[in-house]
Amino acid sequence: VQSHPLAQGVTANTISLLLGHPDPSTLFTPEFQEAVQRVLTSPQPYQALQYGAEQGAPALIDYLVEKFNREQATSLSRDRVMAVAGSTHAVDMIARLYANAGEAVIVEAPSYVDALHVFRDHGVELYSAAIDEQGLVPEALEQILRRLHRDNRPPRFLYTIPNFHNPTGVTLSAARRVEILRLAQQYQLMVVEDDVYRDLAFDGPVPASLLALAGDVPVLHIGSFSKTLAPGLRLGWLIGSRESIQRFVQCGTTEMGGGASPFTAQIVAEYCHLGHWEAHIAHLCDLYRARRDMMLAALQQHMPDRVQWTKPAGGFFIWVTLPENVQARGVKAEALRRGVLVAAGEGYFVNPAEGEHNLRLTYSFAPPENIERGVRVLGEIIERQAKATHA
Amino acid sequence: VQSHPLAQGVTANTISLLLGHPDPSTLFTPEFQEAVQRVLTSPQPYQALQYGAEQGAPALIDYLVEKFNREQATSLSRDRVMAVAGSTHAVDMIARLYANAGEAVIVEAPSYVDALHVFRDHGVELYSAAIDEQGLVPEALEQILRRLHRDNRPPRFLYTIPNFHNPTGVTLSAARRVEILRLAQQYQLMVVEDDVYRDLAFDGPVPASLLALAGDVPVLHIGSFSKTLAPGLRLGWLIGSRESIQRFVQCGTTEMGGGASPFTAQIVAEYCHLGHWEAHIAHLCDLYRARRDMMLAALQQHMPDRVQWTKPAGGFFIWVTLPENVQARGVKAEALRRGVLVAAGEGYFVNPAEGEHNLRLTYSFAPPENIERGVRVLGEIIERQAKATHA
Repeated sequence: VQSHPLAQGVTANTISLLLGHPDPSTLFTPEFQEAVQRVLTSPQPYQALQYGAEQGAPALIDYLVEKFNREQATSLSRDRVMAVAGSTHAVDMIARLYANAGEAVIVEAPSYVDALHVFRDHGVELYSAAIDEQGLVPEALEQILRRLHRDNRPPRFLYTIPNFHNPTGVTLSAARRVEILRLAQQYQLMVVEDDVYRDLAFDGPVPASLLALAGDVPVLHIGSFSKTLAPGLRLGWLIGSRESIQRFVQCGTTEMGGGASPFTAQIVAEYCHLGHWEAHIAHLCDLYRARRDMMLAALQQHMPDRVQWTKPAGGFFIWVTLPENVQARGVKAEALRRGVLVAAGEGYFVNPAEGEHNLRLTYSFAPPENIERGVRVLGEIIERQAKATHA
Repeated sequence: VQSHPLAQGVTANTISLLLGHPDPSTLFTPEFQEAVQRVLTSPQPYQALQYGAEQGAPALIDYLVEKFNREQATSLSRDRVMAVAGSTHAVDMIARLYANAGEAVIVEAPSYVDALHVFRDHGVELYSAAIDEQGLVPEALEQILRRLHRDNRPPRFLYTIPNFHNPTGVTLSAARRVEILRLAQQYQLMVVEDDVYRDLAFDGPVPASLLALAGDVPVLHIGSFSKTLAPGLRLGWLIGSRESIQRFVQCGTTEMGGGASPFTAQIVAEYCHLGHWEAHIAHLCDLYRARRDMMLAALQQHMPDRVQWTKPAGGFFIWVTLPENVQARGVKAEALRRGVLVAAGEGYFVNPAEGEHNLRLTYSFAPPENIERGVRVLGEIIERQAKATHA
């Protein structure tokens, strides 16, 4: 969640290109309602209300394993998967159990602002490796790995968002996946693959996941229902080695609270087994593809010459690079005055200065008519600021 | 959750005096179903499926503030309360944000086994202060405080379960609450009050909470719907100073995942505002009071002379102290062979040896007919083991 004062009360006149939220119109459907009613009228509805199995609702685990194996031609056994209360739960639990305060963790530059916040709450030291249009740059990663190993500070893990990256929208190429896993092998690096946008692929399938390619490299793969069903259910999944999943299943919070979100997990398991989720994903891809196209067209039309932006093949985000004489914070502030909400780039970087000329735009949340208008307003602001500082 | 291999599949012949779970028959009710239907047919049902307000569903916060103020004659403002995904979420978040690895935290001896596990996952150093029939012993607490301050290791907080304590069932007396807050004042100690059993008071109201009595002593008060409505909803609350609640609301996990369990929070808010929860609590008190009375009578009837046990005025648990020549682990193992599940005392202590002659019995989960039979079996085992080691 990218939070802001208006998050809960965006007015009809406000255009939010800020929030990484699914479109509200996609959240409540007859199919979801059907799944709720099936849980309520099941023979033992109380089971969904008791503490849940630590690994997660068995019917949900079965479905997730089947889908992953079918799509990625893997043969994972069910003890390699657990349910989590959204990717937040997974990221936090991984940091808690795999990184001590003061230890090194590598992230991308830029990376997901709220994940950086979670890591900082655990007191870890963050190091960042650049990404470009092909995703994380292996040479940048290797440079950091070499330095950290030379300093006797082996990083506890790499946190990467390989598909439709937040905030840039770029996807890690197939060749780089192999290269990054080779580096992970060489430097004994655990890889945390945050893959919550994977299913929102508009232009054909994404490369195999790092987990599917991993061989014996330790990879933890995070998925979520927040972007493709509903964030309010607080449900996602975590895939890893048998040993790592066992560690999560037996950790303090899992033993204390039981499995993740048992009531909503039961509803989602019904929903998935009825075939509704995969149909819903196809619908979301159509919806968000149209919005992405609309935003790309609007950028093409309204942005001044020296502005650049990514062309995501899925997900929620476009990353804008401003002319060097334009500050993202200034654009954001002026846009806010004109009723357009965007995120400035600083927060996405371990070293905030690296993002001072970037904006993250979101096309998932704004009604289509607002996307064009919002981008037009941004174009005007950027053009004026570029001229003002030139003058 | 006290987990064990049979947690999900206790057979008809197994008697579980182990699990701190609510009675399954209390979980799914027409009133709960009514609340679900009201959310599904509300004007904007999709709002419960979006990322939720970081503080928690506003209707739920309103209800919780009103109930707390009404019952404890306080005048808390709503910015002192936030929703959490069960007490697990609260305990974990408090440890994450208030205690670094290696720092000291004080718990009770014994304390809740899974909370100890969560604290250990954060790498904190645990120190424990004895409790007796009146709850935490102030002199024991002061001794540890003096020692830690002398060693220049001021503890980050005290974790206490003042009402119907897990595992012992005892309640902290009113006089000791004042005394403990005086010590907290003197030693600048933050108090974490885990009060998830508070509403299950069978024999009249419990003393005012530490939070209500705190004055300017920092107290974090944890409540939960897990024991009095349904654990599968993953919902509870956290009350503290304005500043501490703001810190939790703005931490990494809250910013990343949004407010706690939005969908179930909306259902529970409906359920509470309809008056169902407080009626349900009254029903639960009747149900569990009868089970407590049954277990106390069975202990009176079946336990050998030198066995002692607590007489809880509410909650789920009775704490049994065995003769010095009987090991709890041996009793637990033999009981398991005879189909009766109980918890041995070691896990509840920072220093496990302190619990080697203790059992925790739970009367909340077992059907009434099993309580008598289970205690009878335990009595036979203890009697035999006491004689065997004497001989």
